[in-house]
Amino acid sequence: MGLPNHFDLVATDGEARTGKLTTPHGVVRTPAFMPVGTAGAMKGLHWREVRDAGADIVLGNTYHLMLRPGAERIAALGGLQAFTGWNGPMLTDSGGFQVMSLAQLRKVSESAVTFRSHIDGLSFELSPERAIELQRLLGSDIAMQLDECVRLPAERGDIERAMQLSLRWAERGKRAFETAPAGYMLFGIAQGGDVPKLRRASALGLAGIGFHGYAIGGLAVGEPQSVMLAMIEEVAPILPRDRPRYLMGVGTPEDMLEAVARGIDMFDCVMPTRNGRHGMAFTRFGQINLRNARHADDPRPLDEESLWPSTQRCSRAYLHHLVRSGETLGAMLLSEINIAYYQRLMADIRDAISQRALASFRERTRADWEKGDIPPR
Amino acid sequence: MGLPNHFDLVATDGEARTGKLTTPHGVVRTPAFMPVGTAGAMKGLHWREVRDAGADIVLGNTYHLMLRPGAERIAALGGLQAFTGWNGPMLTDSGGFQVMSLAQLRKVSESAVTFRSHIDGLSFELSPERAIELQRLLGSDIAMQLDECVRLPAERGDIERAMQLSLRWAERGKRAFETAPAGYMLFGIAQGGDVPKLRRASALGLAGIGFHGYAIGGLAVGEPQSVMLAMIEEVAPILPRDRPRYLMGVGTPEDMLEAVARGIDMFDCVMPTRNGRHGMAFTRFGQINLRNARHADDPRPLDEESLWPSTQRCSRAYLHHLVRSGETLGAMLLSEINIAYYQRLMADIRDAISQRALASFRERTRADWEKGDIPPR
Repeated sequence: MGLPNHFDLVATDGEARTGKLTTPHGVVRTPAFMPVGTAGAMKGLHWREVRDAGADIVLGNTYHLMLRPGAERIAALGGLQAFTGWNGPMLTDSGGFQVMSLAQLRKVSESAVTFRSHIDGLSFELSPERAIELQRLLGSDIAMQLDECVRLPAERGDIERAMQLSLRWAERGKRAFETAPAGYMLFGIAQGGDVPKLRRASALGLAGIGFHGYAIGGLAVGEPQSVMLAMIEEVAPILPRDRPRYLMGVGTPEDMLEAVARGIDMFDCVMPTRNGRHGMAFTRFGQINLRNARHADDPRPLDEESLWPSTQRCSRAYLHHLVRSGETLGAMLLSEINIAYYQRLMADIRDAISQRALASFRERTRADWEKGDIPPR
Repeated sequence: MGLPNHFDLVATDGEARTGKLTTPHGVVRTPAFMPVGTAGAMKGLHWREVRDAGADIVLGNTYHLMLRPGAERIAALGGLQAFTGWNGPMLTDSGGFQVMSLAQLRKVSESAVTFRSHIDGLSFELSPERAIELQRLLGSDIAMQLDECVRLPAERGDIERAMQLSLRWAERGKRAFETAPAGYMLFGIAQGGDVPKLRRASALGLAGIGFHGYAIGGLAVGEPQSVMLAMIEEVAPILPRDRPRYLMGVGTPEDMLEAVARGIDMFDCVMPTRNGRHGMAFTRFGQINLRNARHADDPRPLDEESLWPSTQRCSRAYLHHLVRSGETLGAMLLSEINIAYYQRLMADIRDAISQRALASFRERTRADWEKGDIPPR
């Protein structure tokens, strides 16, 4: 209880909020989208491009980093910021989610999860305490508690068991974090699947333990958007109003716009880079598939009104050619274009909230997306 | 005969020369290394990085571009410079070399080479005239004649036949180029394998036809470096002194340094980007294999005295991790580091020639390479 608060609410508009989160490596403007630099690298982007696109903070995956190159090695090399050269705020997950999705022979017990590495089959044990230790070694500005995330749909009994276990692990994580230096933060994670009552119990439990910030986990795992939004509506009002709220693993631009309107401050997702590698561009006009033959002879850029140089200048014909030819530059350009779009959307959202104009911004933005791409030439 | 000359010799030092070649899209400082942007893209680099690294000119492959997206399409989109966004000088090869190495069912006759695309099996015919037409459609500042290149070792009879055919194609290429607008250039290509007499005959024949510049082709195709240098020594003195000389497909830093000392002005090679994708860095200390475990815990950069930011800042440990993890960023950084090293070497060579100090620069540079990498930590 009573952890110091590093979050300043600057303005609100309905449930939506804009603020500043101060970390040891710099200030994060919220609502914030955190690009995912899985194993200490953003796929297809230089760190300078991530920065130029407007990202204040990025996410690293503890599971990947603990296996390779190893958290102790990164610590000896000065931490993730020095190691990667991204010298800004970093949030790391606990490793738990990827243990569930990538590791082999995993086994969850009260004390810890044991698993074998998907790279070389070596055995590891990840406890709530070790998850904190790993993230301290990495030097994360924001660490996440170890939790157990259940894929939906799932039996209510399984959801409840995992949620209760996650709450007990939250307490253990908080104790393990007590020795962390001032300024570093630990977030608790609300679980509870698609069951409103369990979601509320989880949020209440976490608020009782007390964290620097609060995440909503276990969403965007296969459920309809309406369920995700309903769960946010259950949880957000229970979480302490003065602390940042992070919706994990979300999402599409539309998901984020809707979640912001329900009080969420932070997001992360691999979608902009992953879809970029598959020839998809996120733009003001929605998602555009550059692989489509309609672009082959089209000299127009994706969006000539964009402020991002590649979006505003590269022709659709060129992007189409790069994607069809499997040229790395195609993935590089589209990943960069997508990260820049996500960051632009967040900046616009922050402005709209400051001006208490989120409702009209949301309407206008959704209308643009729904209109779809400009007609073929 | 009597084609206008766009090359200004600025200084010489022994056989070595430094100069300026003025193209419709800008000036090229020589000796020049041309990074290879195969299919309208540099693998792993943005064009801005190629420019920042110091490249004045890049090379495009007509074979790849004619198949996809097609030369007529690129012409309709404003030419290669507008299409790709590299708005500087471009040299294209004739397509002949890749027809020999990549295409299927190729057949060489007096009139043309016919082949099937390695992408979709469609049939194409490439004549000396069509090779010029394709390069005119692409908008190349410097076009290359179609030639026939024989892999070494080869029978003398085969080498001679291909050399004579290439000379006849050179004449046809020159005629086809007559309608090109002022400022655009056509280079002839000397063949003759590893046979001094045939090399001299080829160079004499080309000089008699008269081109804006002259290339030496059919080297760096498997012969020892000593043979390559001996062939340059046969050919260079015969080529018109006031015209640029381009050694095709070469090479290692050492190859280039030795070739410059024998009167070569231009180079191209995929080695800096290809080796970069395989974890190799070119540095002042020679080639360094970042995959090697000795780098895993080494916080030192590749070369702290380098003027190129990534070479000077990225730790060996980070590059090692990226290469071992198969992260795109590893290939991106090493390709950029290698292109920057090649361009730095060319800039230093130009300075050394201007100061008539190439001999001592060459000695110092070779000594650094031979000393090898800095000792492990």
